[in-house]
Amino acid sequence: MTLTTDFGEGSRYIAAMKGVILSINPDAQVVDLSHSIPPQDIATGARVLAETAPWFPAGTIHVVVVDPGVGSDRSIVCCEFETMSVVCPDNGLLTNLAEHENPRKIVAVEQPKYWMPVVSSTFHGRDIMAPVAAHLSLGTSPDLLGTPRQQVTMLPARQAVRTTSSTDTSSKDGADTSKESSVGQQIEGEVVEVDSFGNLITNITDEMLSDCPRDASVTIRCDEHETMGIYRTYSEQPPMTLVALIGSGGALELAIVDDSAKLMLGVGTGAPVVVAW
Amino acid sequence: MTLTTDFGEGSRYIAAMKGVILSINPDAQVVDLSHSIPPQDIATGARVLAETAPWFPAGTIHVVVVDPGVGSDRSIVCCEFETMSVVCPDNGLLTNLAEHENPRKIVAVEQPKYWMPVVSSTFHGRDIMAPVAAHLSLGTSPDLLGTPRQQVTMLPARQAVRTTSSTDTSSKDGADTSKESSVGQQIEGEVVEVDSFGNLITNITDEMLSDCPRDASVTIRCDEHETMGIYRTYSEQPPMTLVALIGSGGALELAIVDDSAKLMLGVGTGAPVVVAW
Amino acid sequence: MTLTTDFGEGSRYIAAMKGVILSINPDAQVVDLSHSIPPQDIATGARVLAETAPWFPAGTIHVVVVDPGVGSDRSIVCCEFETMSVVCPDNGLLTNLAEHENPRKIVAVEQPKYWMPVVSSTFHGRDIMAPVAAHLSLGTSPDLLGTPRQQVTMLPARQAVRTTSSTDTSSKDGADTSKESSVGQQIEGEVVEVDSFGNLITNITDEMLSDCPRDASVTIRCDEHETMGIYRTYSEQPPMTLVALIGSGGALELAIVDDSAKLMLGVGTGAPVVVAW
Repeated sequence: MTLTTDFGEGSRYIAAMKGVILSINPDAQVVDLSHSIPPQDIATGARVLAETAPWFPAGTIHVVVVDPGVGSDRSIVCCEFETMSVVCPDNGLLTNLAEHENPRKIVAVEQPKYWMPVVSSTFHGRDIMAPVAAHLSLGTSPDLLGTPRQQVTMLPARQAVRTTSSTDTSSKDGADTSKESSVGQQIEGEVVEVDSFGNLITNITDEMLSDCPRDASVTIRCDEHETMGIYRTYSEQPPMTLVALIGSGGALELAIVDDSAKLMLGVGTGAPVVVAW
Repeated sequence: MTLTTDFGEGSRYIAAMKGVILSINPDAQVVDLSHSIPPQDIATGARVLAETAPWFPAGTIHVVVVDPGVGSDRSIVCCEFETMSVVCPDNGLLTNLAEHENPRKIVAVEQPKYWMPVVSSTFHGRDIMAPVAAHLSLGTSPDLLGTPRQQVTMLPARQAVRTTSSTDTSSKDGADTSKESSVGQQIEGEVVEVDSFGNLITNITDEMLSDCPRDASVTIRCDEHETMGIYRTYSEQPPMTLVALIGSGGALELAIVDDSAKLMLGVGTGAPVVVAW
Repeated sequence: MTLTTDFGEGSRYIAAMKGVILSINPDAQVVDLSHSIPPQDIATGARVLAETAPWFPAGTIHVVVVDPGVGSDRSIVCCEFETMSVVCPDNGLLTNLAEHENPRKIVAVEQPKYWMPVVSSTFHGRDIMAPVAAHLSLGTSPDLLGTPRQQVTMLPARQAVRTTSSTDTSSKDGADTSKESSVGQQIEGEVVEVDSFGNLITNITDEMLSDCPRDASVTIRCDEHETMGIYRTYSEQPPMTLVALIGSGGALELAIVDDSAKLMLGVGTGAPVVVAW
């Protein structure tokens, strides 16, 4: 079982959830996925979950508590995928996982029998989601939790888009009738995360770049900064160079060798990134 | 077993304590309760322990190391409650637990047989408390640790107080002889914690508010800010509104919907809070 | 098994490594040693590992990922000591452990059979070191991982040095022919770490101070600040006093009683420290 929240590292609310889980299933193995999701940032929670959960063993139950609507009428769902289950508010946290793979079962969490006896109005992570996940880990069938659902709430896509840019290179004097016109390819995306090294992670995936050359004929622009070529590792370039590479999550990253791209370039999440060739 | 310290998240001193525990009992299950207690802040340590420990399974051993007096003649105690044991310096860390429930056994930790062979003068958490807790988890009786004590050190109470305020509403002209005088109720407390969302948690408990109305006839003042009514959830009010509610710990909280009350109001722990009706 | 990285607390990269380990060995017990090593700071990683790893049970496997050269031709090694194994890049992370004890076996990690099927070029912690450690925990012999090595990469020593300072105390007027000359002892080191309490930890060990008096005849200078005597505990002196003592790691520390020496003195790592007597 893993826990992902926006409580901040070291929050005692995390410990309360673990206490509840261990009270129901003393043999549960609970691993922190991340508690550093920015407060109430559902989009980041969805992305971190989708990138990290697949590394866990098949059958892992992931509990995700980024829950700005706690106490409103938003649902809590238990969502089964091929190799994992997720218990979370149905507020978009499943977007990135569900984009990649159709859930094979979605159940609304409605049956108080599997909750804490007293449910607070502000902390359903501890009072509903943790005990539900603990019961699942003991073998309770998801079907007992509530009624089936057909779909989960999806956040609007914020994906990189591919465009073509026509570049007219005909000579200015009319004498030459041959006209060279090249059609350039480009992908427009943005920085979606800054990691703890200050590397800028984009929403442009390796897959989208499948027909993009990796040599100096490709230009990567981030805000007003520019670099050429897509490298394999940080260490192929001298220190303090801006380098573009495919990061360990399979997305295009911009990094300053041995330093923080965030600080050196002065950009953060939301900064536009354009790959052109 | 849980660990609570003021070492800061990621401190290697936490890992050293875990190493010591696992060296004595390789099967121990050690969960971090919190390592974000402000340095040497015994009062916060006592409060976080009392609010979080009850969520753990019966029989859990809690080790708490907030120990400004390490190396002085302050004692270390093992304190048994109905459903848990605590090993900590006897410096007030047990105040909030002991206010709520009388310990059924208190033992001074004096018998070096259960400590590390070499005890440093600055880190009794690793050298005394961790090995003692590990031995307890293996079934060692607390009676073997040292001599019984009758009580633990208690911090002076910093509780909210209830007062009455007489409001004279007689009319100004002397003609009318009927005189209406209403006696208002009020509770004076303070902000005792700011959580990671910037919510202001007070020392005014739901219990103290049992006869207080929840509608707009009750006024909550924090510093120079004011709001009316006590709500059930954050989501009942529009974004950027100051709202009072009962938090998941059972205490009155002040929150700004979708934002940080701490930053927006510019107040922190110690700020006066008055509930009047 | 323990993990030490420079990813920062709460990084999802830590969770990915744990997921990989648990996927291979579901019974592995994984403890965080520290993830607060400053980014790419190999020297601090080496020191934290050497100070903390010995507290863990014999047979523990320690994985250390401070890896500025990931993707270059730096090796990854598995290094066996008397009571532990370490899997890490061969970039100096083993310096402090190997200074203290000769490794009994060093193997270059070369055999992809024990790695993830797909290896990224930027995250060998997840793709090589975590699976290798998981296989070791299942009983795989280090000999199967690759070819033996004779030595590991060592960082240049940054140790404190002992010097003698001759102090001529002859009287100024030439009349007196007796001439007193005393030879003073001194050790020149520096602050190598600031802990979470703001205490300044030096590279001057208790061992180097074996013949140094502990009373007021010894002077400790840090930058332009000075204190006399080496104490046993923080609590022997009044609040706000600068005090020198031997910390729980066996090294000379400078602390301000009940406050942060770092903030009060305005010094950090690298600040010169001289002990003279």
